[in-house]
Amino acid sequence: MFKLRARIIDLETGSLPIVTINESFAKKNDIHGMERVEISCDHAKIVAVVNISEKMLNEDEIGLFEETWKKLKIKEGEIVNVVPVGKPESTKYIRKKMDREELFDEEIKQIVKDIVDEKLTDVELVAFVSSAYMNGMTLAETTALTKYIVETGGKLNLKKKPILDKHCIGGVAGNRTTMVLVPIVASLGFTIPKTSSRSITSPAGTADTMEVLANVSFSIEELQDIVKKVGGCIVWGGAINLAAADDKLIKVRHPLSLDPEGMMLASIVAKKLAVGATHVIFDLPIGEEAKLKYIGEARHLEREFKSLTNNFGMKMDTVITDGSSPIGRGIGPLLEARDVLWLLRKDKKGPNDLKEKVTMLTGKLLELTGKYAPGTGKTIAEKQINNGAAYKKFMEIIEAQGGNPKIKPEDLIPGKYTLDYKAEKRGEITNMKNSVISKIARAAGCPATPEAGIYLYKNYGDNVKEGEKVFTVYAQSERNIDNVVKILKEMSPVTIE
Amino acid sequence: MFKLRARIIDLETGSLPIVTINESFAKKNDIHGMERVEISCDHAKIVAVVNISEKMLNEDEIGLFEETWKKLKIKEGEIVNVVPVGKPESTKYIRKKMDREELFDEEIKQIVKDIVDEKLTDVELVAFVSSAYMNGMTLAETTALTKYIVETGGKLNLKKKPILDKHCIGGVAGNRTTMVLVPIVASLGFTIPKTSSRSITSPAGTADTMEVLANVSFSIEELQDIVKKVGGCIVWGGAINLAAADDKLIKVRHPLSLDPEGMMLASIVAKKLAVGATHVIFDLPIGEEAKLKYIGEARHLEREFKSLTNNFGMKMDTVITDGSSPIGRGIGPLLEARDVLWLLRKDKKGPNDLKEKVTMLTGKLLELTGKYAPGTGKTIAEKQINNGAAYKKFMEIIEAQGGNPKIKPEDLIPGKYTLDYKAEKRGEITNMKNSVISKIARAAGCPATPEAGIYLYKNYGDNVKEGEKVFTVYAQSERNIDNVVKILKEMSPVTIE
Repeated sequence: MFKLRARIIDLETGSLPIVTINESFAKKNDIHGMERVEISCDHAKIVAVVNISEKMLNEDEIGLFEETWKKLKIKEGEIVNVVPVGKPESTKYIRKKMDREELFDEEIKQIVKDIVDEKLTDVELVAFVSSAYMNGMTLAETTALTKYIVETGGKLNLKKKPILDKHCIGGVAGNRTTMVLVPIVASLGFTIPKTSSRSITSPAGTADTMEVLANVSFSIEELQDIVKKVGGCIVWGGAINLAAADDKLIKVRHPLSLDPEGMMLASIVAKKLAVGATHVIFDLPIGEEAKLKYIGEARHLEREFKSLTNNFGMKMDTVITDGSSPIGRGIGPLLEARDVLWLLRKDKKGPNDLKEKVTMLTGKLLELTGKYAPGTGKTIAEKQINNGAAYKKFMEIIEAQGGNPKIKPEDLIPGKYTLDYKAEKRGEITNMKNSVISKIARAAGCPATPEAGIYLYKNYGDNVKEGEKVFTVYAQSERNIDNVVKILKEMSPVTIE
Repeated sequence: MFKLRARIIDLETGSLPIVTINESFAKKNDIHGMERVEISCDHAKIVAVVNISEKMLNEDEIGLFEETWKKLKIKEGEIVNVVPVGKPESTKYIRKKMDREELFDEEIKQIVKDIVDEKLTDVELVAFVSSAYMNGMTLAETTALTKYIVETGGKLNLKKKPILDKHCIGGVAGNRTTMVLVPIVASLGFTIPKTSSRSITSPAGTADTMEVLANVSFSIEELQDIVKKVGGCIVWGGAINLAAADDKLIKVRHPLSLDPEGMMLASIVAKKLAVGATHVIFDLPIGEEAKLKYIGEARHLEREFKSLTNNFGMKMDTVITDGSSPIGRGIGPLLEARDVLWLLRKDKKGPNDLKEKVTMLTGKLLELTGKYAPGTGKTIAEKQINNGAAYKKFMEIIEAQGGNPKIKPEDLIPGKYTLDYKAEKRGEITNMKNSVISKIARAAGCPATPEAGIYLYKNYGDNVKEGEKVFTVYAQSERNIDNVVKILKEMSPVTIE
């Protein structure tokens, strides 16, 4: 054991606690970078990862980042005890997985526990993700991972059945089905506590779009109250931390763009289980630029979801949809929210492609509950829009989430700087690239600026005349419009033939 | 581009530059943790990895660690420009390797270049190491990795041929062959610029042991002068940074205990190429607790070394040796150095097992040059010890490395606190565990305290009487002796039958 003087570093590391020690002290005492030490004082102890500092610390000093000095409750200059400790047990199982052996249920449990307890370094987490990516995961492994992600996270406890849910694999611009599906389902008396994500690479996530109309960040308790009151919600999943282990895995998957299938499946199904979902519909869009490119990939994923959800007694159905071009007319948080309001208010500006898709999807989910005969769900869903029940329910949800239930589509004013994109020639639009549309919307300021985005007058399959407007770009600054112009010089969002 | 106010953080990160930015600023501007940004001011720019800080920074601030503010030459409060930038090209190739595709020569070149230029994060480096571990490396990949590790590192330029070298796979306590082999070889007029490692998990590395007698840290230029003058050297490889890329790979391999075979081969052969070696002997000890456990593993490695060195026109031979128990009598830097001096001075205390092994090894290396007929090398090596030429050369090397050429074995005084380990019964020593011997020597204070260690009176195969001394432990503090006692209560270093 060593006694070192604390040096307070006024920064947090955001993950596993880190301490910094002097290089020659480390060398003399055989402590290496990335190894673990237990730091203790009279009243507390903590395990931290060692960083080596060449010059900045004296040999008798230890640099403590915020997580460490706060937990130890110590001040600059106090003396702490430092003892090297071994690696957590789960590093052995990570190594086992790297050696292509299947992990037992208990071993995955230990890994998830150590992730949640912040005992694993990023380097070890990456090794785990890499091993799952390269060696794959068996159904038993994925099932265990799902189970322990749920067990170690928060849970919504609604004490009701059935609980309905929906998940979309994503990658399609403007695809705002959740904000229509949830009110329809809740208007029929079902419970649907929907959590959604924010945008990562798209112009808007469902949470970003809903945020234009209401709050989306709630605690688990607040969420339970909202759902008990109005039957449904549309909130940001990140705020309620339903799956802490999953968030930490995603943190290292993101910079490597690594998405091991087993982990993706576990991540999705765990979030459904955490809200208590009993009946779930999966939307699998396929298209050149969607996440799923070929029908075979969608069919494969469908089978995997079926096996995994079956292990948890969850009823599920999947819908394979066309993800080749944007859905709806608005792209960007405010413009997509306006589309949803128009649609639910039966305004003729409500986008028909979105209505078609969402009623089909909702219909399948309704049929899955067994309360409606096969083939009748879509009509039920349409009826709930047409009789105004879905609109009324949506306003109840907005009010329950602290928004203005009197909001009208015309209250939503898009960005004041605009740019019209016109057809260069006459013909039919044979391609509308999701990726370029997303790029333009992001250059215009999405998702940080909710008023930014694109409004499409034409879409895939439409005929255009030369000089006819295809879409308008909205932004809140001229600089954003300049950025859009630069992109349009380099790439074309539409093909006219 | 964003403009942020610099906040100086008086700590270095020791690797890729890191900057810290405010969480809500990051969210608004769609910058994620572990992504890269270019930071610039009037006179300099640098690429750094983003860390997200929840509370400690204002939205208009950026936290700069030492590497960053020093390179940018800026002070607290100055404004810097921040632009998100993409990942380096080599991340694509790392991903390709994870997808089980073979990498081209040019792709490995780019990876090594990006490693040396510190463009890759630890997370990306781990992904590369994991992929090599899990998917293996082809001979072409290993050859390319070796080539570019050498090209991007420093090189010894002795303008001479042949240049001899030796490598031992390791794992055997007390195995100090280098310090005998180098003087023999150099005394015959050959050039042998030997670089060695310090201890990582053993009681002493060759560099730690040589340091008892002379300096071991030199620049490349100093090393060239020493070798030109006396024909050989025994120095610490870490000080001359011959293979910068390799050091960075080892940094992430160590905490995971991951040793992908291709990377290990490349690492070893690159270090030989960096000193210009043309003839190399490989010592492959096998034993229950050595790095190689079975003869099959040694044979496999022998073939791999042969193929790889052949691609660089290097002549090589291997010797498979017994690594089941310690070699020599002293364990620990000072005690091992004393053994070597005794041996070269033809003192009867010189350990015979070390002499047998080293003359056999040296003989094979001498025969490899073609100057000596097969089967005659060992006799030549023995002659150089017996006629005092090797001892004389060793003193020349010690002097050239700034040590005292008049040093005698009796000047080397081991630790003043001792503990005798005695045989509990009469019989034959049928096992002497390297791992327990190493543990005891480290508990006694090795390698940080050179005077600490073990002196063996008996070894594997020897007969002992009840109560007879098997070994003495030396330490410089009573606390270290207490630690040894604790270990001896838990595990036994010898089996007597």
